[in-house]
Order: sequence, then structure tokens, then C-alpha cells
Amino acid sequence: MKLPRSVQGLVEQFEKLPGIGPKSAQRLAFYLIHVPDYVVEDFSQALLNLKRNTRLCTQCHNIDEAELCLVCSDATREQSVLCVVENPLDVIALERTNTFKGLYHVLHGVIAPLDNIGPEQLYLRDILDRLDGVTEVILATNPTMEGEATALYIEKMIREAGYGPEEIAISRIGHGLPVGADIEYADGVTLSRALEGRRNL
Amino acid sequence: MKLPRSVQGLVEQFEKLPGIGPKSAQRLAFYLIHVPDYVVEDFSQALLNLKRNTRLCTQCHNIDEAELCLVCSDATREQSVLCVVENPLDVIALERTNTFKGLYHVLHGVIAPLDNIGPEQLYLRDILDRLDGVTEVILATNPTMEGEATALYIEKMIREAGYGPEEIAISRIGHGLPVGADIEYADGVTLSRALEGRRNL
Repeated sequence: MKLPRSVQGLVEQFEKLPGIGPKSAQRLAFYLIHVPDYVVEDFSQALLNLKRNTRLCTQCHNIDEAELCLVCSDATREQSVLCVVENPLDVIALERTNTFKGLYHVLHGVIAPLDNIGPEQLYLRDILDRLDGVTEVILATNPTMEGEATALYIEKMIREAGYGPEEIAISRIGHGLPVGADIEYADGVTLSRALEGRRNL
Repeated sequence: MKLPRSVQGLVEQFEKLPGIGPKSAQRLAFYLIHVPDYVVEDFSQALLNLKRNTRLCTQCHNIDEAELCLVCSDATREQSVLCVVENPLDVIALERTNTFKGLYHVLHGVIAPLDNIGPEQLYLRDILDRLDGVTEVILATNPTMEGEATALYIEKMIREAGYGPEEIAISRIGHGLPVGADIEYADGVTLSRALEGRRNL
């Protein structure tokens, strides 16, 4: 038995979303059949608003509704520290810690040759345009193979542009055991990173 | 740090859906920021189409785009057997088995006093209007407490309307071990139902 066309249409849209399989997609579509009309209309409108109202900050490429994002337009932030992240969600996670007061640079991805994503597909080269007055670059890409490779690429790019270690310090976020973790259950790579990253007390 | 308003708006819409928590909702909204415009527009349109184009079959209350659903408008189906189910998804599951050739009646829920859902909130009383020429009613509500209670309620309703067992046979779908299950791991209630429902070979 086939689903009615308009139900099937919505099921297919839900299926395109990451982490939503055919069964969940069907459940979501049938759920929406029973909600009041205005709920579905609001949902539909929210989708359109997303594309109409959001834009990338012209400076750091974070997502916002203005030309300069909240961080970039905040003059009280340290202009000399630049934190490079993969995604806008990373900015939100870091901001939540309330410990970083510098500026961000959002790559919108990582170098991933297997997915055909090279440096040109990312907001990567224009980091060089932002290094005026910057004394530290923190590379906060994910501790994955692609994240590490991208961090190394950026470091090399900055050094080759003529900025020596005495002008701009380049650091990588710390790797090791997450707080609350159990050494007993930690994987070997994390554990050896934790040993390498040990600090004197 | 707050999300841009239009992103937050979509996150809230996703959060309203069953089984989607705050983290998933955020991930879905940020995913959609990166897809081409037309994908989001199609999604938005599919939501509107759902409400505009679907309607309940006037006879069995299944969801379809026509006044009579595919099953009800199919004259080759046995008009004498009525299968009562909770939801349109149950119809799809049963149709997939290709074993049932009668008609359906979709309640759109079960009697659930704790959720303030009584018989009046369901398409329940109008089963009585469909009993002309019907010789068997199969009660295929879920094997949950509410499903069982609803099945008993319907049986009582039909009998009290004056239809005796010789006119209309009323049956409940079989309960027991699902095919492929392991007796060792079955819960006690299912196992005792499986014993009650044993069949001579």
C-alpha cells in the first residue's frame, strides 16, 4: 500500500535529514497530520526564515542575521586572539564555557580528501587577511584525523606567509581525558594523548 | 551566547517533534543552513501540502487525498470483514502483509483516561453505522493496557447495539511471541499470552 502523495512527500523530506531513517520519517509525518494547522504553518515559515534571514558574518563566517556577528561586533573582545573552529555549533559550545574572550574564525568544514573537500571549499585562505595585530591563533578543529590535518595545514599556511613563532603563537586545543572520564575505560589513543599533554603541578 | 533568531525559531519547531531533543534539533537546523535553498523550500512546501491535501476518508477515517480512501473505494475488498485499528500507520503495516482483504476502521487513538481521551474523542461510535452486512469485526488495537480496554469497549458497544455472536463474530488479533523471538528472553506477560493462545497442530 502506498502512502498518500502529500504524506509521502513529507516523509521523503524528513528522510533527507541526518540521523532520521525511513521509520522515524514516517512517524514524524503522521504526527504532523494530527497537530493543528498553525503548528505546521509555523514550521513551514521557520524553514523559509532560516534561509531568508541568516547570513555568514563577513569577518569570521559565523552564522548570524547581521553583517557582523555578535562576537565580531563586540569591541570588548580581545582582537589579538583568533580561535579557528570547524562549525558555528563549535562557537556556541566554546562561548558557553565563558573562558574564551577572543575572536573566532569558522572554516565551515575540514579538509577531507575522501569527500572531495579541499582547502578551496573552506573559509581557510582568508585567515591570512585577519592576522594583522593577532598574536595567537588557537586551532580548535576536532581531534579527528581530518581535524588534525586541517590544523597542520593552517599552521603551515600561516608560517609560510611569513609569520614567525615570535610574532604569532599557534596552539592546538588540549587533548586528553574528558572531565569525569574513567582511565580504565579510556581508549589507547586518548590515553597516550593525555600522557603527552601532562602538566606540572 | 544566543542563537540567531531565525535559527532558534527552527530549532524550537524541531524540538516540538516527538523523539527529537534539543541537541538533535540544533543539529538539524544547522544542517539545513548548509543545504541549497531549494531543498529547504521543498521541505517548507511539503509541510503545507500535508495539511492542504490530506483528508480523512469519510468511511474508515484512514488518511488519503480523496473522499474515499484506496481501500474503501476498492470494490474487490471483502465488505463483510472490518478491522479496527488505532492509527493510519497500522493500516499500512497490515496492508504490507497482504493477508487481510477486508475493510478498515481507524480510531485515531485509544481510550486513555489519563490523557483525557474518552470514546467521544475517537472515531468509535460510528463503527455502529458500518455494521450492515458485516459478519466479522477484528479488533487490532495494540496489545497495551489502553488498546485492550478499547477493544473490550468496542466489543461491548457492538453487543449492546443488539448484534449477537451469531450475526457478527468479534475477534482480537493474536498475542504471543513474535516470529524469530527467543523464549528465553520473552517477558512473562507475552509468554503467558503465548500459552493461552496455543493452537492444536
